[in-house]
Amino acid sequence: MSPKPIITLLTDFGTADYFIAAMKGVIMSTTLKVTLVDITHEIPPHAVAAAAFTLLACYRDFPAGTIHLAIVDPGVGSTRRPIAISAGGYTFVGPDNGLFSYVLDHESDSRVFHLTRQDCFRPNPSTTFHGRDVFAPVAARIASGIAISDVGEEITDPVRLDFTAKCNSTADGGCDAAILHIDRFGNCVTNITREIIGGRKTGSLSIEVNGQTISSIHQFYAEAADMPSELFAVWGSAGFLELSKYCDSAAQRLNAACGDLVRVRIRG
Amino acid sequence: MSPKPIITLLTDFGTADYFIAAMKGVIMSTTLKVTLVDITHEIPPHAVAAAAFTLLACYRDFPAGTIHLAIVDPGVGSTRRPIAISAGGYTFVGPDNGLFSYVLDHESDSRVFHLTRQDCFRPNPSTTFHGRDVFAPVAARIASGIAISDVGEEITDPVRLDFTAKCNSTADGGCDAAILHIDRFGNCVTNITREIIGGRKTGSLSIEVNGQTISSIHQFYAEAADMPSELFAVWGSAGFLELSKYCDSAAQRLNAACGDLVRVRIRG
Amino acid sequence: MSPKPIITLLTDFGTADYFIAAMKGVIMSTTLKVTLVDITHEIPPHAVAAAAFTLLACYRDFPAGTIHLAIVDPGVGSTRRPIAISAGGYTFVGPDNGLFSYVLDHESDSRVFHLTRQDCFRPNPSTTFHGRDVFAPVAARIASGIAISDVGEEITDPVRLDFTAKCNSTADGGCDAAILHIDRFGNCVTNITREIIGGRKTGSLSIEVNGQTISSIHQFYAEAADMPSELFAVWGSAGFLELSKYCDSAAQRLNAACGDLVRVRIRG
Repeated sequence: MSPKPIITLLTDFGTADYFIAAMKGVIMSTTLKVTLVDITHEIPPHAVAAAAFTLLACYRDFPAGTIHLAIVDPGVGSTRRPIAISAGGYTFVGPDNGLFSYVLDHESDSRVFHLTRQDCFRPNPSTTFHGRDVFAPVAARIASGIAISDVGEEITDPVRLDFTAKCNSTADGGCDAAILHIDRFGNCVTNITREIIGGRKTGSLSIEVNGQTISSIHQFYAEAADMPSELFAVWGSAGFLELSKYCDSAAQRLNAACGDLVRVRIRG
Repeated sequence: MSPKPIITLLTDFGTADYFIAAMKGVIMSTTLKVTLVDITHEIPPHAVAAAAFTLLACYRDFPAGTIHLAIVDPGVGSTRRPIAISAGGYTFVGPDNGLFSYVLDHESDSRVFHLTRQDCFRPNPSTTFHGRDVFAPVAARIASGIAISDVGEEITDPVRLDFTAKCNSTADGGCDAAILHIDRFGNCVTNITREIIGGRKTGSLSIEVNGQTISSIHQFYAEAADMPSELFAVWGSAGFLELSKYCDSAAQRLNAACGDLVRVRIRG
Repeated sequence: MSPKPIITLLTDFGTADYFIAAMKGVIMSTTLKVTLVDITHEIPPHAVAAAAFTLLACYRDFPAGTIHLAIVDPGVGSTRRPIAISAGGYTFVGPDNGLFSYVLDHESDSRVFHLTRQDCFRPNPSTTFHGRDVFAPVAARIASGIAISDVGEEITDPVRLDFTAKCNSTADGGCDAAILHIDRFGNCVTNITREIIGGRKTGSLSIEVNGQTISSIHQFYAEAADMPSELFAVWGSAGFLELSKYCDSAAQRLNAACGDLVRVRIRG
């Protein structure tokens, strides 16, 4: 017996309404040979960049063949294109608004298709809920075995956003970066990768956010257990530098929000 | 291999406690041949009307044969009856307090059964958690193949609430309606259906809520992208007229709450 | 066809981030022959006692053989041991910080193993996310059939915390107890069991919390429907005495928090 295809769901729909259930019902009405996994539905409303980051942080943890259905879609019903992408062994389905920018950056074999096969949609699709009426039905068809090249026309100009554009190297070897995401624990995920400051010795760095300075990079959170008031940096599990505080919210302490400037400077 | 029956779960139990896990554990201890799908557990505590609306908005998206387990149950442990309903190809299990009113309104083949077969319950059921001790075990038995007519006695007087009673036509062809539900995005779902004002020309309507007037019905949200401060109406994905604002909360702007009066008037 | 093993997930990771999806992806990349069930991910950050209570309240509702993956792990990356436990027909996987104390108290056949088989971990595990890099891979291997005794070395000194230590009998036959958990409805779950005051007649008890006194033990919540302002006690579904208010939050009314003192006194 061949394994059931996996469809993940990543949206800003929340979990209080009927939206996610409607999408799952539609998928299961098309095929029962599917395993559904929620990534999250708590992307802040309309926050395309946050959804792109979350997808980046976990899409490769799923088995090859997984279909990632990702929808943050303020343009629903307008002329923004519905798309499906084949990339890195995965399929992605969602709106063409930049949500898949990281995927397109990271996977060299990407092929993007504009979903034009209206017979794959729900009959008489609404203009306000393409998650249920366009994207879920297409994902279910792909899970059922329809080739991605059969659900639309290949395009070469998908919308791409450069979320890490603000990570600019400075003359002293440091960089001006930004906070990309704040997690449940108050860790501030920056857009700084090991490539940018990886070779730097910890002791030679200072990181400034909203007037406060951080000068330690720790190996793990509890390394700061004896200095509970200390802010520190740590290489996070998504591959970016995070600003943290032990068992407390660094974001609150730094009064930080997504997009805030993070200055990395080389000392001495 | 016949497909696994689907059981959906819709409650006001939240997701922070052990309640949902206990129900799922009980179901899976009875039968592993089942697929569990959460509708939502964030119905406001004790809000039977909100649960009824949410169920209405998605129950038909699931495949025929699906068992919808729906529990908002302030009367747990009292004399309110536990019931199961066969209607429209689906089975519904939950308390007899009006939660299934829309289903009974919409499905002409409904049969309602008072759950009296105590040997189908968990032994020594608690008086505070019938979700785990009565409803989940019964849903699991039905998923295992027991006929709904075998789990209780047919009744003809289930509790019915008329949630749309407040949508009254007025002399000028308009209506006095109400806000039924406010979703995550701040869209205010009214109890106005196309049947009531469907034939009306958009330009001839004015909609008043809490002293503010809305006069446009848009086809989709982003139609208002160029007028971000505008409030507008849109036919929502559950079939009701919604009051909306592009990428913003109409509910906040209207200072609206569930039950608020919505006056639809014919102009000029 | 043998049934798929069940892995439950209980964490303080929240559902807004990619953490849970990453763990599920890792598990499904190891084995697709598994059913994943969320217990909750809304344990307050770092709250080991709350996680222990939640696990206690539902782990036995799942079928024998279920693997309970439970992670509240402020010490991640430090010297705290990763462990797996075989107890009562279940397997438990998580950090050695007291999270499994109730399980060890209740199951006489417990065997505890320090997870030392690094080839069962994700290659190059991070120091900040052992949920993804250590615990999920080990749970997936156990679900795949590896014996728990093959993933680590048996130990006899797991960390144990005594969450009910504050429930002390008093000279008059009452007790000084504590609030263990406050649920979504505002019910205050105490650490008082039937064994402690079970034989007592209701009329002879008075329960004092933050200066307010409760003197009724009801059979079910709606018993107080006619006295909506009344606070009462009820035997909760997890086996502990709860302090409640009908369709309202007892916690708010009592201004109560976890850990607050609950004095049970014998009257007259």
